[in-house]
Amino acid sequence: MAVNMSVSMKIKDSIEQSSWIRKMFEEGAKLRAEFGAENVYDFSLGNPDLEPPAEFFKALKKMADSTATGMHGYMSNSGFMDVRNSIAKKVSKEHNLKIEGNSVVMTCGAAGGMNIILKTILDPGDEIIAIKPYFAEYGFYVSNHQGVLVLVNSNDDFSINIDAIEKAITPKTKGIIINNPNNPTGKIYKEKEIDQLCNMLKQKSSDNRKIFLISDEPYREIVYDNREVSPVLSKYVNALVVNSYSKSLSLPGERIGYVAVNPDFDKFNLLMDGLNLCNRILGFVNAPALMQRIVAELNDSKVNVGIYKKRRDILMAGLKEAGYEFPEPEGAFYLFCKAPGGDDIAFVKHLQKYNILAVPGIGFGGPGYFRIAYCVSEKVIEKAVPKFKDALASFR
Amino acid sequence: MAVNMSVSMKIKDSIEQSSWIRKMFEEGAKLRAEFGAENVYDFSLGNPDLEPPAEFFKALKKMADSTATGMHGYMSNSGFMDVRNSIAKKVSKEHNLKIEGNSVVMTCGAAGGMNIILKTILDPGDEIIAIKPYFAEYGFYVSNHQGVLVLVNSNDDFSINIDAIEKAITPKTKGIIINNPNNPTGKIYKEKEIDQLCNMLKQKSSDNRKIFLISDEPYREIVYDNREVSPVLSKYVNALVVNSYSKSLSLPGERIGYVAVNPDFDKFNLLMDGLNLCNRILGFVNAPALMQRIVAELNDSKVNVGIYKKRRDILMAGLKEAGYEFPEPEGAFYLFCKAPGGDDIAFVKHLQKYNILAVPGIGFGGPGYFRIAYCVSEKVIEKAVPKFKDALASFR
Repeated sequence: MAVNMSVSMKIKDSIEQSSWIRKMFEEGAKLRAEFGAENVYDFSLGNPDLEPPAEFFKALKKMADSTATGMHGYMSNSGFMDVRNSIAKKVSKEHNLKIEGNSVVMTCGAAGGMNIILKTILDPGDEIIAIKPYFAEYGFYVSNHQGVLVLVNSNDDFSINIDAIEKAITPKTKGIIINNPNNPTGKIYKEKEIDQLCNMLKQKSSDNRKIFLISDEPYREIVYDNREVSPVLSKYVNALVVNSYSKSLSLPGERIGYVAVNPDFDKFNLLMDGLNLCNRILGFVNAPALMQRIVAELNDSKVNVGIYKKRRDILMAGLKEAGYEFPEPEGAFYLFCKAPGGDDIAFVKHLQKYNILAVPGIGFGGPGYFRIAYCVSEKVIEKAVPKFKDALASFR
Repeated sequence: MAVNMSVSMKIKDSIEQSSWIRKMFEEGAKLRAEFGAENVYDFSLGNPDLEPPAEFFKALKKMADSTATGMHGYMSNSGFMDVRNSIAKKVSKEHNLKIEGNSVVMTCGAAGGMNIILKTILDPGDEIIAIKPYFAEYGFYVSNHQGVLVLVNSNDDFSINIDAIEKAITPKTKGIIINNPNNPTGKIYKEKEIDQLCNMLKQKSSDNRKIFLISDEPYREIVYDNREVSPVLSKYVNALVVNSYSKSLSLPGERIGYVAVNPDFDKFNLLMDGLNLCNRILGFVNAPALMQRIVAELNDSKVNVGIYKKRRDILMAGLKEAGYEFPEPEGAFYLFCKAPGGDDIAFVKHLQKYNILAVPGIGFGGPGYFRIAYCVSEKVIEKAVPKFKDALASFR
């Protein structure tokens, strides 16, 4: 009898399933208490540690000094029109397709954007495909709106396996999520892969059935070695882009991001009405007003990606030298490392003996690997490298 | 076949159902274009027009000048602990019960708070009771999480009809929402009514079944003539309070509010874990960081309620003199007026001929009445009063 609980059956299960994450946090806290925070190497959290860039603080002070009225009031559920127009200019450049502000909905970060899209498009039982390894929150987002998440394998190098996706498509497939650059692998899907994916989706679509492409791109601006992230909106008509300023401007706590849509999307006006309505009724109502106004002025600003690059380089060199194997991270701030021996949970537990905290790949649908989030100081990485070496040497 | 749509069946229906609201907006825009904005009396929106108080801008500037690190970063999904501790002090006073920060979850406004509560507690098909006339968004919030909204009548004076609620309770009843002060009636439920409601809910609860009381209180501080809003947390153990700063600090666009829970709530820790998880997975992740820090410093601040009171008094006097009938608004900024002739849609259409925009009560489950939102300038109210008079005189 369900009524004798303070939470629903589903939420109770979810709390229990995520209890291993809590255990890891508790393990980290225990290690910090025992050895001191400076002697614990916590690579478990994708929490950007860089401060926002100077331009952000300049814009914030300007807004704080503003005497304009209505700065903190309601606006359209999709956001201030001038803000949406500004974001449209940025997206037009990135996606090589001219869009206007009416193609943009301001959201409470990428997580808010994903939820309003899925709430808008999903009928109960509709399927959404995602590529392993994947950002595990997608499972919740799809389930929130009575959809079914269908996971497909990537190729061995974590590139998109077009055949696997094609085989996973059923009459119930409503869309596919790609996360580019990818969390947890740090890989960027190449433009050629995106082309192939879009071509296949075009073939699978007809007048009676469209498959939507949802490109989740919060790490679009965190890329290395002059790499670029492929446009998507210009390549596929039924495409939606989700982005946030959590990483590019280091504003994860402020919950500001957006959804952008190809203006030729099937029944575009109905879709935009749906996104607007879902932003309202899911309880977001609108993206925070002050942050909307600030990010609208910062189209050309981002954090110093060179800092993340330097950390990546130190970590890569150290792990390689120690004998670890991994694909080179091309973007985001994650390194997805092969677990020596093949059992990622066992190896992550072993790393804890060296005060190193990482996340088993199985949580991302990538068993046999573990994720190292290198959004920590260079000093922590430098001190951790010899520990990684010792851990590998002692692991049987 | 549902796949040939850009939105789900349910969202398509919702868009179509709310198209009359859009029609009203369009009608307003048309009137403004034809007669000039200053000659249109728009009482349709519950959008507070007062600017935030001076203390808000002081705190905002202080935060903007802060050189502390992590001001805009992630924190616990439930919010910064020091912020939650500050809010707990405010709630303890208002609800006559000592609570700590661990009883508080910071949310993206009251709408975010309502959604995380309902997501946390509802199994599919569970029922939530609300009292007519009611804030119509509750229908969406309950439906978002597969619940069923059960509406019950209030007494003729819009006070709580305890018998009606008791009769509506079934084995599937999970909770009851009260909105105090009420939108759209502007009534405050008296302490005696809350006592009677809590007593009935206690009788209906047992070891095997608890009925949760959700008190939605965004207008708690917008009250007139020295009235007070009854505490709830001290009166019922399985009570949750939802509040926001949208009205008390005029910050509706910034999406900042909270949920507060009785510390003796049934399986308290499980509930708080559920709220924390649902804040995360619904896509809020956390309430906006900067606004959390600001409201934590403003426990003793609010907008000048005297301004709303003066508007209410002018409106009441004018409508009474013209011959309209209505219960006196005791809080919020709504006046719920009897529709002359009894047909609220017909009368609202008639008012439009006098450039007056109001909302038919049927949208709130209160047919026969219409809602006047007096969060508009005194000047607009003063100019509208003779129009209301003319409208009534010419209405057959």
